[in-house]
Amino acid sequence: MNNNHDTSVTVIGLGLMGQALAGAFLKAGHSTTVWNRTTAKADRLVAEGARLAPSVGDALTASPLTVICLTDYQAVHELLGATDVALDGTTLVNLTSGSSAQAREAARWAEQRGARYLDGAIMAVPPAIGTAEAVILHSGPQADFAAHESTLGALGTVTHLGADHGLASLYDVAGLAMMWSILNAWLQGTAMLATAGVDAATYAQFARQIAVGVAEWLPGYAEQIDKGSFPAEVSALETDARAMAHLVEESEAVGVNAELPKLIRAMADRAIAAGHGGEQYPVLIEEFRTPRNG
Amino acid sequence: MNNNHDTSVTVIGLGLMGQALAGAFLKAGHSTTVWNRTTAKADRLVAEGARLAPSVGDALTASPLTVICLTDYQAVHELLGATDVALDGTTLVNLTSGSSAQAREAARWAEQRGARYLDGAIMAVPPAIGTAEAVILHSGPQADFAAHESTLGALGTVTHLGADHGLASLYDVAGLAMMWSILNAWLQGTAMLATAGVDAATYAQFARQIAVGVAEWLPGYAEQIDKGSFPAEVSALETDARAMAHLVEESEAVGVNAELPKLIRAMADRAIAAGHGGEQYPVLIEEFRTPRNG
Repeated sequence: MNNNHDTSVTVIGLGLMGQALAGAFLKAGHSTTVWNRTTAKADRLVAEGARLAPSVGDALTASPLTVICLTDYQAVHELLGATDVALDGTTLVNLTSGSSAQAREAARWAEQRGARYLDGAIMAVPPAIGTAEAVILHSGPQADFAAHESTLGALGTVTHLGADHGLASLYDVAGLAMMWSILNAWLQGTAMLATAGVDAATYAQFARQIAVGVAEWLPGYAEQIDKGSFPAEVSALETDARAMAHLVEESEAVGVNAELPKLIRAMADRAIAAGHGGEQYPVLIEEFRTPRNG
Repeated sequence: MNNNHDTSVTVIGLGLMGQALAGAFLKAGHSTTVWNRTTAKADRLVAEGARLAPSVGDALTASPLTVICLTDYQAVHELLGATDVALDGTTLVNLTSGSSAQAREAARWAEQRGARYLDGAIMAVPPAIGTAEAVILHSGPQADFAAHESTLGALGTVTHLGADHGLASLYDVAGLAMMWSILNAWLQGTAMLATAGVDAATYAQFARQIAVGVAEWLPGYAEQIDKGSFPAEVSALETDARAMAHLVEESEAVGVNAELPKLIRAMADRAIAAGHGGEQYPVLIEEFRTPRNG
């Protein structure tokens, strides 16, 4: 096996996402081996030119690069733990959803078996795989990512976040928290404006502009966090808190859900109670760093 | 007074924001009358060319357009209720922060007094007034806005939302909910990534890209809400809920605040319990429409 020239790839796990991954490799011209516990899920891929491995061990040794996409890390450990094939020289890219701790543990296990290991997270739905819209995050040794970057590039927009194997899953859930927060804030506003007869399409244009505008502030605000200094250059938290009270009162007055407004206000109120009312919004990082379960 | 040609303007209330408003009118060349309970706050503006009115009544009759920016609606009613000058033919633009109900009530009061009335909300800090970055929302009769749009344009990017006087304050708090939600989601991610040694500046670039990307989905998702139909074209809510569980577990595992992740999950769980697990995210609008105080 020569990692520099052999661009063949194995895909283990053929759920909807695994099938999309294998299909994208095939479409990009990579010699592709697949394995799944239920072999019928490989039928369409075999018809498209994939080779069905007779065993997990065979699948793992068929290619210098194996992409794993199973239900959870438990399934990964059960499957790989049951085979005793040598993993020396092979690179595993585990795109199974899990936690940063599970990723780091899997990395230790794989390295003990002699494998190179990258952990990944797919920020896309199966139909987007193989297009630039599919963002796939990788973490682990930079050299191992670089060795396979062009092959992995068949899957979408692939990025390397750093050597810590836990980074891909951390960035993944952090990015999802951003996604759901924007959607929820938009739904909050949509529900409020609906009480005045404004349709969702009309409000969405306004919400989109606000979201894009605020997104551009993040790099500047990040400087305050990295410096640990939060001068109220634009606005002080206690000024924001008065507007938060308006948001809560208005939500209640028009008869919509006030849970999100109340959480926004509660976190700011705590920071003000801790003496940060004269500082700028990013000082709330201290609240977010504090374990609390609501 | 001829509204078509007389572009003089009165500003009542000279807090930091009121001073910025009057300053922007002066800078744009408008003949500007000001009034404030504490006259000393007018000193700088008078030095710049403003005329200090001797009374509220004089201020209200000095210009065809009066912009009001006080602490709250209570202050507006006390001030304007104490004068008996004729308001026929004058246009009041009330930029005082308040609720949609207060705006509608103030509109009724002003109209009973014979005034034209627009309610407004300033989505900017005082130093931004007079630049395109200062977004100022107006609601009330379209013709009254159109008659003064060019004068009001001295303040920033002015927009008219509709005839319902409550719209400006509703859009204002809805937009602020979006702003704080993006900042909070970013702080959540920043706190999580910090546990893996990632600095805020590094994560901010990623968060910015996610936020801008998600903002672009809103118009499409709005169509589902306006149709009241939520087919899982991209992802089903029950699939999202599994990733939400990862977010909660990861937040707890790395030892940061889990309140925001738990609220995200709780709202989705309720929608799933109500039978919407196979539908797409915007189906959560039903949760946001339901009064609930957390």
